[in-house]
Amino acid sequence: MQKFRGVYAILATPFDEERNLDIPSLESLVEFEIKAGVHGITILGILGEVHRLSDEERSIVTSTVVKAANGRIPIISGTGASGTDVAKLYTKQAVEQGVSGVMIAPPRLVKPNDDAIVAYFSEIAKQCKVPIIVQDEPATYGVYFSVELIARLAKIEGVRYIKLEDPPTPMKISKIRAAVDSDFGIFGGLGGLYCYEELKRGASGIMTGFAYPEFLCQIYGLMESGNPEKARDLFYKVLPLIRYEAQPLVSLPIRKEILKLRGAIKNSTTRPPSTKLDSADRKELDEIITTLRLTETIAELVA
Amino acid sequence: MQKFRGVYAILATPFDEERNLDIPSLESLVEFEIKAGVHGITILGILGEVHRLSDEERSIVTSTVVKAANGRIPIISGTGASGTDVAKLYTKQAVEQGVSGVMIAPPRLVKPNDDAIVAYFSEIAKQCKVPIIVQDEPATYGVYFSVELIARLAKIEGVRYIKLEDPPTPMKISKIRAAVDSDFGIFGGLGGLYCYEELKRGASGIMTGFAYPEFLCQIYGLMESGNPEKARDLFYKVLPLIRYEAQPLVSLPIRKEILKLRGAIKNSTTRPPSTKLDSADRKELDEIITTLRLTETIAELVA
Amino acid sequence: MQKFRGVYAILATPFDEERNLDIPSLESLVEFEIKAGVHGITILGILGEVHRLSDEERSIVTSTVVKAANGRIPIISGTGASGTDVAKLYTKQAVEQGVSGVMIAPPRLVKPNDDAIVAYFSEIAKQCKVPIIVQDEPATYGVYFSVELIARLAKIEGVRYIKLEDPPTPMKISKIRAAVDSDFGIFGGLGGLYCYEELKRGASGIMTGFAYPEFLCQIYGLMESGNPEKARDLFYKVLPLIRYEAQPLVSLPIRKEILKLRGAIKNSTTRPPSTKLDSADRKELDEIITTLRLTETIAELVA
Amino acid sequence: MQKFRGVYAILATPFDEERNLDIPSLESLVEFEIKAGVHGITILGILGEVHRLSDEERSIVTSTVVKAANGRIPIISGTGASGTDVAKLYTKQAVEQGVSGVMIAPPRLVKPNDDAIVAYFSEIAKQCKVPIIVQDEPATYGVYFSVELIARLAKIEGVRYIKLEDPPTPMKISKIRAAVDSDFGIFGGLGGLYCYEELKRGASGIMTGFAYPEFLCQIYGLMESGNPEKARDLFYKVLPLIRYEAQPLVSLPIRKEILKLRGAIKNSTTRPPSTKLDSADRKELDEIITTLRLTETIAELVA
Repeated sequence: MQKFRGVYAILATPFDEERNLDIPSLESLVEFEIKAGVHGITILGILGEVHRLSDEERSIVTSTVVKAANGRIPIISGTGASGTDVAKLYTKQAVEQGVSGVMIAPPRLVKPNDDAIVAYFSEIAKQCKVPIIVQDEPATYGVYFSVELIARLAKIEGVRYIKLEDPPTPMKISKIRAAVDSDFGIFGGLGGLYCYEELKRGASGIMTGFAYPEFLCQIYGLMESGNPEKARDLFYKVLPLIRYEAQPLVSLPIRKEILKLRGAIKNSTTRPPSTKLDSADRKELDEIITTLRLTETIAELVA
Repeated sequence: MQKFRGVYAILATPFDEERNLDIPSLESLVEFEIKAGVHGITILGILGEVHRLSDEERSIVTSTVVKAANGRIPIISGTGASGTDVAKLYTKQAVEQGVSGVMIAPPRLVKPNDDAIVAYFSEIAKQCKVPIIVQDEPATYGVYFSVELIARLAKIEGVRYIKLEDPPTPMKISKIRAAVDSDFGIFGGLGGLYCYEELKRGASGIMTGFAYPEFLCQIYGLMESGNPEKARDLFYKVLPLIRYEAQPLVSLPIRKEILKLRGAIKNSTTRPPSTKLDSADRKELDEIITTLRLTETIAELVA
Repeated sequence: MQKFRGVYAILATPFDEERNLDIPSLESLVEFEIKAGVHGITILGILGEVHRLSDEERSIVTSTVVKAANGRIPIISGTGASGTDVAKLYTKQAVEQGVSGVMIAPPRLVKPNDDAIVAYFSEIAKQCKVPIIVQDEPATYGVYFSVELIARLAKIEGVRYIKLEDPPTPMKISKIRAAVDSDFGIFGGLGGLYCYEELKRGASGIMTGFAYPEFLCQIYGLMESGNPEKARDLFYKVLPLIRYEAQPLVSLPIRKEILKLRGAIKNSTTRPPSTKLDSADRKELDEIITTLRLTETIAELVA
Repeated sequence: MQKFRGVYAILATPFDEERNLDIPSLESLVEFEIKAGVHGITILGILGEVHRLSDEERSIVTSTVVKAANGRIPIISGTGASGTDVAKLYTKQAVEQGVSGVMIAPPRLVKPNDDAIVAYFSEIAKQCKVPIIVQDEPATYGVYFSVELIARLAKIEGVRYIKLEDPPTPMKISKIRAAVDSDFGIFGGLGGLYCYEELKRGASGIMTGFAYPEFLCQIYGLMESGNPEKARDLFYKVLPLIRYEAQPLVSLPIRKEILKLRGAIKNSTTRPPSTKLDSADRKELDEIITTLRLTETIAELVA
């Protein structure tokens, strides 16, 4: 099985002005991410508005992205569902469509129930031919993954990664590292807000939708090549934007706005219910990008 | 537009032993409900395990039930979704498949947002040719419908009903009745646990999955014909079972177990994650049914 | 250590019209409960509006009730708190004031954390000379007690009981009984709505604020004396009121209203924020009491 | 009435090694904050572990801090409670003890209920002689303050401020500014993570427990004196620490650790249940402080 490491871009799902899937933008977005240097792409996550897509649209997004990537980097698809059977169906379809891995959110539970979560992942894993990434996202799914539960899940054959969105992530990484074998991969999330600490604590990579992925790739590369101070400096440099993007409710529209400004997608449309940026948001965003000289810095990085 | 009143059975979705849709059982269940005297059927609700069905399965359930009912009673379909666009899609498909009404759960919201809820229902209603029932189900959807919000929704053309699962429902009915025009229909829920009080306070009917719908039909009929005391006596008589069925987590497996015992469906299979009855549950259920002489009483009612 | 079994009345805290503690009513309420035949009294629970009392008022309630009971029945006091240190303080004070046991709600947790709960109960138990009852009340405290956690807590010296408000309670009782030693006591709650099943499954008693405790005492007595059928009949008889009292939001005002009607307290005042009964509530309540002939039945029971 | 503006330090409550109140540290902490240049101090907030203090301890903290400040800067005390009566009691006591303002958290509500919140604040305000600050802290209290609700509260005489912890705070400030009169004060929170944007959008100040308050004071001063670019530069400079402190669960122990390192308090003890820092946390903290040259920078600022 393939090994996932590095920067995995969580992909937004582009829509046109009528809120239909914008396939050309989806293709150009994949190109944009690959050009930015990401090591992989994760589709159908929260940022991808997966909960506002029909089953058919999920399928279209998957096939479009797999085809656009054309094997250059691994594609991971979100295939969790409220119930086991639909999660199995989504997983089966995604694997048939050619994804390299699946990221699986917990099922809907009326009450906390670790045994039910273990049963869910076990049953999905039994039929799944690609590595499974557990999606630890309590803010959205209302499910808390204790380290004990993660250790149980890590013993299931095929469950090889976790993506953390449960703060404080640095501390959680240390606890998981102490509890599971070293092969088990951990991706940090939270928009990259703690990516430097996460990597230092043993994260396998950063999986997030930050709209300037070039910087995350640089940070990751510097860490890998033994230059933590340089990584830290770059991290601190872009932190004002990472922080700005991390705001609940407006994170998605901010990122889509940046992706549009950067030419990666045509429209910044999000599907309702979602929050619209106000004029001050746009000014603040512009101020941050200008002040941090992000465009110029990327040009320098490339050069 | 058709007027919905009376007992609306929320339909379970029968599965076979492999957890696939059991179409013959779905058809026989429709027949069972019609024979029991219900005034309508609601499919794809929580009891119908809608959150554990794929889009394709939703469609199959809808077409099967509409065809089986064959116009004898109205079929209402749950067509809400996390996002507006998918809710519109589900609604459009269900209407094309022949349902008489749609029951719409609120969208997924990161924070309380009445304006977003009004926008969601307004946009769905604009394209919807059948009456809309608002699904007030805070325990599942985490959305609270204040009376002020309900009054706003009731002004949207096409939004004509609410189904209440937000206790105390009797008090809420009185408040809604005082705030909206008398044409607006209110269905009680909560498994029928307060159906007598709900009807006295002006409910249009009872919409629930109680597995002995014959009694609810009798209770409703007695209320309609001006015999509240007889309605109350019958309600009190079956209350031990109504209460027993109302237990969180096991409500669904209890009802499927009864439906199987009564021959309405072939298997009591539920999709995971869901709770299995233990042996004491089955004994308790049997004790209640036997003690209350439910089988005999129905035979007498029919005779 | 004393053994708690039977019907434990959760005591309301009576207020006068200015919302001050009504000490004479508190004393007469204790007398009312003892006369009704309860085996013990639990003060400072949710029904006692403990979260709307100052520390000084908590202390006054405790000393008043202990003095009024005068050793005739055990008094259990709610002494949990958001933090360990205050819970220890409350526990120490209550024990010094003469209570026979303490009921301890979980601490406030930002995230689920079984170890923190075990540490909290362990530290309290270490200094506590009376038995501890774990208060399993997820609806109020947002803390879920899994059977695994309960088994861990049951191993702490001094933690000898649990009071369940986590439905379905009958099933949970069976699971706990299978997981902990038989000395560990389990009290059912939920307003008595499942008390018959709870007792059959091995509950040690019923701990709730039902305003006609005489019936619970009869039901418990019939179960103890080997007359489950008679117990069940009586339970079914009063079920319409048990159910009516069990409504969220209005449960407290309904019970205070009944206690006032029955002469146990002078005013039905509740402290804000709390819900006021509407006129229909009062009529419904009156209808239930009249129809069930509760007053007459109690007179017969006594005679 | 006094006008609150600028940087208000939310005060930690120092404990000794036995977890008792450490009065000398509390006094030195007040001195530390005043020396740092804060415009006011807020006691008995979440960071002050108010929910883990007894009523008596609350009173001791208040009197100690008021006495230590000795009128040099305003002291604001958290006096909200689960119920109206206790909130009134806390408020009355705090005002008698000499605080200049009170910060009031919402009451405990079983369901969302704007009317109950308005009634709660109205009743408290009626008897309160100092300005009231509404504490908008949904993560802790589970109560969401819509802009409509805030506009209603702002009309209550005496309710003159809101402290925001409901992200995205910049957008919320703009919405509140458009909805209420310009006299109504708004304090940003969230550990200062968006303080630059908050101040630009019209915040009256920053109310948070950031352990290097000198920087917040500088940022605020630069904004006030018309130097937003310099304010922004300084904000960006200290952002790595602001971000680090903002982590859920460990925010409190990190801040107490820094306060100890800086000599403001003697012990970093927190009351349980609370999270302990691990060794990597301490290293990360040290790395941030060293890298950012915080100690040296403050020396330069002072010089």
